[in-house]
Amino acid sequence: MFTAKIDAGVLRECIEAITAVVDEGKLRITEEGLKLRAVDPANVAMVTFELQRDAFGDFLFKSESGAGAPPESKAATDVGIDFVKLRGILEIGGREEVDLKLDEQAQKLFTKMGSLSYTISLLDPSSLRKEPKVPDLEFPIQVIIETEEFRRTIRAAEKIGDHIVLGVDGEEFYMEVEGEVDKLRLGLRKEQLIHLTPGTLHSLYSLDYISAMSKGMSHATNITLNLGKDYPLQIEFEVAEGKGKVSYLLAPRIESE
Amino acid sequence: MFTAKIDAGVLRECIEAITAVVDEGKLRITEEGLKLRAVDPANVAMVTFELQRDAFGDFLFKSESGAGAPPESKAATDVGIDFVKLRGILEIGGREEVDLKLDEQAQKLFTKMGSLSYTISLLDPSSLRKEPKVPDLEFPIQVIIETEEFRRTIRAAEKIGDHIVLGVDGEEFYMEVEGEVDKLRLGLRKEQLIHLTPGTLHSLYSLDYISAMSKGMSHATNITLNLGKDYPLQIEFEVAEGKGKVSYLLAPRIESE
Amino acid sequence: MFTAKIDAGVLRECIEAITAVVDEGKLRITEEGLKLRAVDPANVAMVTFELQRDAFGDFLFKSESGAGAPPESKAATDVGIDFVKLRGILEIGGREEVDLKLDEQAQKLFTKMGSLSYTISLLDPSSLRKEPKVPDLEFPIQVIIETEEFRRTIRAAEKIGDHIVLGVDGEEFYMEVEGEVDKLRLGLRKEQLIHLTPGTLHSLYSLDYISAMSKGMSHATNITLNLGKDYPLQIEFEVAEGKGKVSYLLAPRIESE
Repeated sequence: MFTAKIDAGVLRECIEAITAVVDEGKLRITEEGLKLRAVDPANVAMVTFELQRDAFGDFLFKSESGAGAPPESKAATDVGIDFVKLRGILEIGGREEVDLKLDEQAQKLFTKMGSLSYTISLLDPSSLRKEPKVPDLEFPIQVIIETEEFRRTIRAAEKIGDHIVLGVDGEEFYMEVEGEVDKLRLGLRKEQLIHLTPGTLHSLYSLDYISAMSKGMSHATNITLNLGKDYPLQIEFEVAEGKGKVSYLLAPRIESE
Repeated sequence: MFTAKIDAGVLRECIEAITAVVDEGKLRITEEGLKLRAVDPANVAMVTFELQRDAFGDFLFKSESGAGAPPESKAATDVGIDFVKLRGILEIGGREEVDLKLDEQAQKLFTKMGSLSYTISLLDPSSLRKEPKVPDLEFPIQVIIETEEFRRTIRAAEKIGDHIVLGVDGEEFYMEVEGEVDKLRLGLRKEQLIHLTPGTLHSLYSLDYISAMSKGMSHATNITLNLGKDYPLQIEFEVAEGKGKVSYLLAPRIESE
Repeated sequence: MFTAKIDAGVLRECIEAITAVVDEGKLRITEEGLKLRAVDPANVAMVTFELQRDAFGDFLFKSESGAGAPPESKAATDVGIDFVKLRGILEIGGREEVDLKLDEQAQKLFTKMGSLSYTISLLDPSSLRKEPKVPDLEFPIQVIIETEEFRRTIRAAEKIGDHIVLGVDGEEFYMEVEGEVDKLRLGLRKEQLIHLTPGTLHSLYSLDYISAMSKGMSHATNITLNLGKDYPLQIEFEVAEGKGKVSYLLAPRIESE
């Protein structure tokens, strides 16, 4: 049993952060809130999402299987959601409140925005990709940057090439993309960033994935980039006014030279 | 002989209401104003349009054939108009005044917006579909609803399916569309509507047609829906600040179950 | 050696004026500023562009070949630029200042907008079309018109036909386009124009070219049209707040009747 209320704009922000990587996935509902971990079909990118119960109003969850279990047990329900469909409907609504109600029996999620009700059939969890393991990663370098600066560079980079280098050179963070005849570089010194671990390393990533991710982060003020040498990229940011967290993980590309 | 002036924005609003159903048609000019009745090529939808002479400035009409007829006779001139072309030109102009002048001899309609003149050759009325008879219909249920509420639901419905149910259940008006895995429903109680005849009935309609119609009504504040059981839908609204009226009629679809 | 600073918006305005006719070309840098003359691939349209050195801040130019030459010599460097690529990057930046720096050795142009650096390889001048000769033309008629009035007419004309007549009839300037069943005409009397040489003549032009040109002039308040009878059209306007000049030349089309 799950019912809750949430601001339509906040829910849209969350769903957009998810659809930057996957179209559908298994959302885990617990007494603490919502959680999701999913990989894209090509196994190149992963999104981890958490939304605390206090992002909602009237949050109510009881696991059906766990009815007789002691209250401290970690009861959870997994629901398969087509996030792209849900996003489409949320785009229509204004900044109203959305009522959510799960009917596990009927395998449906009911959403209500004012007089508009939207019922979405849950996807069969067994038809969805398995929840990925989060690899055990250590990132020597952390950069915190204004989201808009990052997104603007990505938009410029899209005009030039298919891959982008993210790196740190001493006290400078840089993003670099090379086209056939041109080259774009953003270089930000430590004092132009919110945080920088000095060092020297870089990795190459597919621009398509980072472009999609940069759309998912558009409501966040700052993002944290966790970097290594020829290593996955982790991008972390907050949603729902700090009551939710999103983390993207992107595999590096091997440089051809 | 016909000459008149009209606000470009008002004329555009009228033409857009017409092009929601037909691209071209026979506009009837009389001393009372303009009239049109036309069906779409598939014979599924009809538009009836009326614009009173007091929506115009300097409205002047004399039927050429009726020169010797007594003034009380119902003199009228039918002109075949390509409304899509006319709309295209009106989209360019601002909210200026448009001068209209009909040259029956040359079979041309002259429009003048400021320094810009636009001459459109009239279509041969014999090449146009015959003006349809208005079927003799009785609608047991009338619903008056804010246009924006209706249009917003149609925009959401377009993301889900091809057909939409409009119905009344007791004191509630509803619109419902089912997709493969999801379902959207707008339910408005009597007190959320401007008017509702209570009852129980519904009909199914093609969403494509209603989508087109919902674009044609964008300037109206309210619309009146006349409904029956498995019956045509009639949508009525005002244009030109109450000096014009538009009525759409849409045939129902047979429900497959 | 060439380095200079310029407002990103001003540079974008200049590049957009050039890309209305050509995608790439040879930019000539001298101590007086920048110059370009180029024809479109079909040899139908020409653009001439000049930007004075005082449109820049910290303008510094020394011809490498002319190092030992006396200062009064007309030293110049030609650089082949892909203007469409450059425009793409400038569209991303805001109204910041752009630092330009030419590296003739490496055949690269460096641009820097804030923390974003963009390096573009110069095109081999021998791969570019030869700079055209400016034909020796005399225009009997000059019309100065508000850009927005001209552009609005062109936008309306695009909906109707492929060719446009520009002409003067006594004290009226007109633009006229005929479609299959309709005809658009802008007629402006001398007092509605900033300047008009009275006369009687007209020429026909391809609308595609004028449409493209009308996008290139969008920042200018007024444009000057130089006209003749079945003669090329010259359109002149200012960029960079009067510190730059653009001139388009467009060959006439032969009227089919």
